[in-house]
Amino acid sequence: MKAVVFAGRERVTVESLPDPAIQESGDAVVRLSLTGICGSDLHAYHEREKGLEPGTVMGHEGVGEIVEVGDGVHGLRPGDRVFSPFTTSCGACPPCASGLTARCERGELFGWRSGGAGLHGMQAELVRVPMASTTLMKIPDGLGDEEALLLGDVFSTGFFCAEMAGAGPGRLCAVVGCGPVGLMAVAASRLLGSERIFAIDSIPERLALAETFGAIPVDRASADPVEAIADGSGSPGVDAVMEVVGSQPAMRLALELIRPGGVLASVGVHTSEHFAFSPAEAYDRNLTFRTGRCPARHYMERLLPVILGCELPLASVITHRLALDDGPEGYRTFDRKLDGCIKVALLP
Amino acid sequence: MKAVVFAGRERVTVESLPDPAIQESGDAVVRLSLTGICGSDLHAYHEREKGLEPGTVMGHEGVGEIVEVGDGVHGLRPGDRVFSPFTTSCGACPPCASGLTARCERGELFGWRSGGAGLHGMQAELVRVPMASTTLMKIPDGLGDEEALLLGDVFSTGFFCAEMAGAGPGRLCAVVGCGPVGLMAVAASRLLGSERIFAIDSIPERLALAETFGAIPVDRASADPVEAIADGSGSPGVDAVMEVVGSQPAMRLALELIRPGGVLASVGVHTSEHFAFSPAEAYDRNLTFRTGRCPARHYMERLLPVILGCELPLASVITHRLALDDGPEGYRTFDRKLDGCIKVALLP
Amino acid sequence: MKAVVFAGRERVTVESLPDPAIQESGDAVVRLSLTGICGSDLHAYHEREKGLEPGTVMGHEGVGEIVEVGDGVHGLRPGDRVFSPFTTSCGACPPCASGLTARCERGELFGWRSGGAGLHGMQAELVRVPMASTTLMKIPDGLGDEEALLLGDVFSTGFFCAEMAGAGPGRLCAVVGCGPVGLMAVAASRLLGSERIFAIDSIPERLALAETFGAIPVDRASADPVEAIADGSGSPGVDAVMEVVGSQPAMRLALELIRPGGVLASVGVHTSEHFAFSPAEAYDRNLTFRTGRCPARHYMERLLPVILGCELPLASVITHRLALDDGPEGYRTFDRKLDGCIKVALLP
Amino acid sequence: MKAVVFAGRERVTVESLPDPAIQESGDAVVRLSLTGICGSDLHAYHEREKGLEPGTVMGHEGVGEIVEVGDGVHGLRPGDRVFSPFTTSCGACPPCASGLTARCERGELFGWRSGGAGLHGMQAELVRVPMASTTLMKIPDGLGDEEALLLGDVFSTGFFCAEMAGAGPGRLCAVVGCGPVGLMAVAASRLLGSERIFAIDSIPERLALAETFGAIPVDRASADPVEAIADGSGSPGVDAVMEVVGSQPAMRLALELIRPGGVLASVGVHTSEHFAFSPAEAYDRNLTFRTGRCPARHYMERLLPVILGCELPLASVITHRLALDDGPEGYRTFDRKLDGCIKVALLP
Repeated sequence: MKAVVFAGRERVTVESLPDPAIQESGDAVVRLSLTGICGSDLHAYHEREKGLEPGTVMGHEGVGEIVEVGDGVHGLRPGDRVFSPFTTSCGACPPCASGLTARCERGELFGWRSGGAGLHGMQAELVRVPMASTTLMKIPDGLGDEEALLLGDVFSTGFFCAEMAGAGPGRLCAVVGCGPVGLMAVAASRLLGSERIFAIDSIPERLALAETFGAIPVDRASADPVEAIADGSGSPGVDAVMEVVGSQPAMRLALELIRPGGVLASVGVHTSEHFAFSPAEAYDRNLTFRTGRCPARHYMERLLPVILGCELPLASVITHRLALDDGPEGYRTFDRKLDGCIKVALLP
Repeated sequence: MKAVVFAGRERVTVESLPDPAIQESGDAVVRLSLTGICGSDLHAYHEREKGLEPGTVMGHEGVGEIVEVGDGVHGLRPGDRVFSPFTTSCGACPPCASGLTARCERGELFGWRSGGAGLHGMQAELVRVPMASTTLMKIPDGLGDEEALLLGDVFSTGFFCAEMAGAGPGRLCAVVGCGPVGLMAVAASRLLGSERIFAIDSIPERLALAETFGAIPVDRASADPVEAIADGSGSPGVDAVMEVVGSQPAMRLALELIRPGGVLASVGVHTSEHFAFSPAEAYDRNLTFRTGRCPARHYMERLLPVILGCELPLASVITHRLALDDGPEGYRTFDRKLDGCIKVALLP
Repeated sequence: MKAVVFAGRERVTVESLPDPAIQESGDAVVRLSLTGICGSDLHAYHEREKGLEPGTVMGHEGVGEIVEVGDGVHGLRPGDRVFSPFTTSCGACPPCASGLTARCERGELFGWRSGGAGLHGMQAELVRVPMASTTLMKIPDGLGDEEALLLGDVFSTGFFCAEMAGAGPGRLCAVVGCGPVGLMAVAASRLLGSERIFAIDSIPERLALAETFGAIPVDRASADPVEAIADGSGSPGVDAVMEVVGSQPAMRLALELIRPGGVLASVGVHTSEHFAFSPAEAYDRNLTFRTGRCPARHYMERLLPVILGCELPLASVITHRLALDDGPEGYRTFDRKLDGCIKVALLP
Repeated sequence: MKAVVFAGRERVTVESLPDPAIQESGDAVVRLSLTGICGSDLHAYHEREKGLEPGTVMGHEGVGEIVEVGDGVHGLRPGDRVFSPFTTSCGACPPCASGLTARCERGELFGWRSGGAGLHGMQAELVRVPMASTTLMKIPDGLGDEEALLLGDVFSTGFFCAEMAGAGPGRLCAVVGCGPVGLMAVAASRLLGSERIFAIDSIPERLALAETFGAIPVDRASADPVEAIADGSGSPGVDAVMEVVGSQPAMRLALELIRPGGVLASVGVHTSEHFAFSPAEAYDRNLTFRTGRCPARHYMERLLPVILGCELPLASVITHRLALDDGPEGYRTFDRKLDGCIKVALLP
């Protein structure tokens, strides 16, 4: 099969690899019809997250059709159309039982191999999925491939972030960063009932889409967001801030936006050693800070009716659809935000 | 001044009455610019609720301008545009302090006098408002008179009902009855994040407006609602049922729609002696039943940002706008649901 | 084996029956070491609940040792000491998945057979348990047989009732009826943090035990409970009332105790056709009414650490311990509350 | 009057000062009968918190009798026995209205003056209390002076911390540090229903009192707390960790104790620039971190019934009771933890 493979810092290539096969009884093999490039793939690509083994198939977002299942797989069979969260999960260990599937004691992240161990990713024609019964979900009638792809990763993550922040009716919200996850956080805040959501970015296309999703756009290139939001809201601070970028300036801005007693939810992956604020600054604001990896498998189940009933054009975040062979170009376009790129999907 | 006055069973007349004046230091007198006829006015009109003294000015929904305030009124002065909840409240007694302003220990319902005591209503040119500082709210920029009228009564009541029922993302909802409060409950369920809300009625105009507000209409004239909703949702029962009618059949239907462990919220005013279901039927469904009068003053504050940010055409429920002199015709039109009538507003 | 068997209205006998055997692959057979007589057994005994087939083994509370398991049983094997909720549950249907195990779509109540179908009970030497893997739980170190028996039924039910009522720090509580479930509701309210819990009964032994569990006893034989609690609390109504009796007077008293906006939780099994209050009385109090059968299997898991850490002498509710052969005497003693009886356990 | 006055780094003296007088109409003057030395007084004493003006009366815990009130004071009069939170609050600004009285827009901390402005403290014979109507509370019958002193500061703070952490039935808790606030957090966790609370310290007297309050003591001098708690609980991490010390090692330990998805609540006052963990460490644990100053005035109201019903000997934390003249010795004893000292109260 063909696959997009990590080839060292800032290099991915399309390679021919042996087809994956069933290794354990709980495995399934899926033929992918759609796979995404995610912002967190860029952390590995740039080696900001270190340790990814060259030769690893990239990617953790995927939709496709089951071609083979092991003996121990229940509820799924060849021909089923399925979508996947970005990690595997067993559904039975204590974190899984409490809904925290992203912290499954036996779970693995797709597209991460190190020291000869780990799981290949989904930017490929085929992928092997361990613990398939409790990892994959069938795509129900009425759910498009692109929506399913989003639900398996960025929509769930954005919703998780909005829920952690406590978005809801009467709650003043701000989203710091309008990449795919930030845009999903805007949409989720709206779906949860917030009527005033300030969305901060500097790229016009992203701000325009944030507005489509129900936000009041704040262009940080032309105004100080803290002042702009104070002016726009008539309030000295917001109730709920969502930080989805993972940089120090984004986190700092998030803190400065918040009112005393407010909530800062962060799903950005941070690589800095320190927080962008001190313990005393948190104390002085009576801050609640919530962070972590979205338990996507759990959210996929919960949010299925939500996404089926959603009238917002969520799939508009996918601005580029390329063939798998064009994966390297997809990475470049996405990384450099060329051509108004927000999110890239590959069609194997 | 002129006012719409109760004249005995199923009769209201327009009369000339002395202008109201300040009686206690906390009073204000308001010149009304808009007043509504509410479904619960019909209970008094038909003497289903007994005891209303003939000669009482009707109505408990009103918007207007302050013309005079007593010495003890804070924060309000002549010229201020204000709106009102349907009861007065002191803001300081235990129920008020806990947000339950509709159960204020000193509160009175507008438009209810009995045995020579009580408060005249708002279907008039002028109204006296006791405890004005903690009863009235100023109308902020951006809020129209009609929206303010709704916020003081039916929108708050619909939202209260949807919150009691636990409407929200992923929660399957049903609203029994699409009068003004039912339509507001639909809108509120949508604002709270529910994406599937079944709205049950038999009048096409009401079902059409429910659909505009985000519901899936269910015409009980042409289908059994229990079956229709089971078919439409693929679920044997809904999570959250809102009963806004106040009749035995409506309550019975509400119970039959609910799943085990679901919630039935009722804001309909019931005059029957018994519940439409037995204690054992409630037990067998692990039912949560919630009811009561909306603490409108508390909700007016909470929901101000919600209604300001709301994009649904809430004021479409007001289908008829008449002069105060036409109040009797307004009652007849509303009571008999003539001419597609959903709600009547009077302009003093 | 020997068993206590229903023999018609107000008659139970001890009979020799064939030993139960594995019938389906998910079954287990358990040799009982302790079994309880529950207040709800008396409903069947008196035929207030009609339809129980003579010849049915009574009882739904049991602790014992597994003697045999079917091929499909996971996680349990002969020799394991186990305890049981009062119904079986599959753990996988929608109600089970949401924690509502008492409404399992495939679940059955122990000790209820009708028309040749149903499940024999636990007042026997042996019992067959369908869906054993998801019904039974192993007894961990440190948990005594009597505490396990309580946890499988009355402690879970009392805790469920206290949680439904919203017991907690600063919440004024009242428990109507100090039988075994009422006493457990007192203990649970205490464990949940309520510091003022009024416990109402007329039997001195029960009131004394309620006091041991942390309640303020109210003897309804010598005082009007509504007045006594208003005097004792300095408050016109309580926040949370637990009704555990299942009679009209108990429910009526519960309503009269409650403050506006309060919660009435009822786990009593009611056989009257009507509620003890009207819809208008509920509305006028802004009442939340919650009822239903405790999802005991779910609570057994949740409450295991709670009961292990509990310092209250919960097993004091078991005032009588008899041999299985003395089952008929146990029913009589419990039914007539002879000899200070609160709860009877049988030792097979 | 006499007062304990800040005299520069690690020096307090007893001085004669002019009696305070009413300055604004909302002021009251209180004659103190009991005042406490709090752990946070030591931050100023050591100048870890910089900027306290020499000559400032120390202390923010106090109980006493009103001797004079300004014209604008409602509900309080000379002769009333009152207790106080550690800050003043207006009761009306947005933070106050939402219950966050410690972040009152007009509030001041007792015992903090800088640049000629600020409020003198309570380690004195008399204190002036601005906004007295909304700051002070009357001491009800049944509440002792010492309990009132604790409720105004350390009990409220400990309870706030336990609530932020989500202590409750079935929730495994750990408290890092058994000074006065830590001991109150233990008691509060117990009152909220947690049955397993690990309390970590190295001082035997403090551990013994923690055990009296319901904790499992963990002596970090003789065991690694992480291992000891894992062994003692059979769980790889706790649900709720309370950090009350304010040091880097305490915060680090708190993080290491927590399970994925757990909550870390911190009321310790931190002076370090950085958190004791990185953003990635928080992310990898799906951490909720909550911190801030307790809104003591709001908690005093809420917790009054809780402390009145509490059977734990809370006042045992006060190990030393000295005359006001012995204030300097009180600081030394408390600071160096001499003679088993946990908390010092002064009697003016």
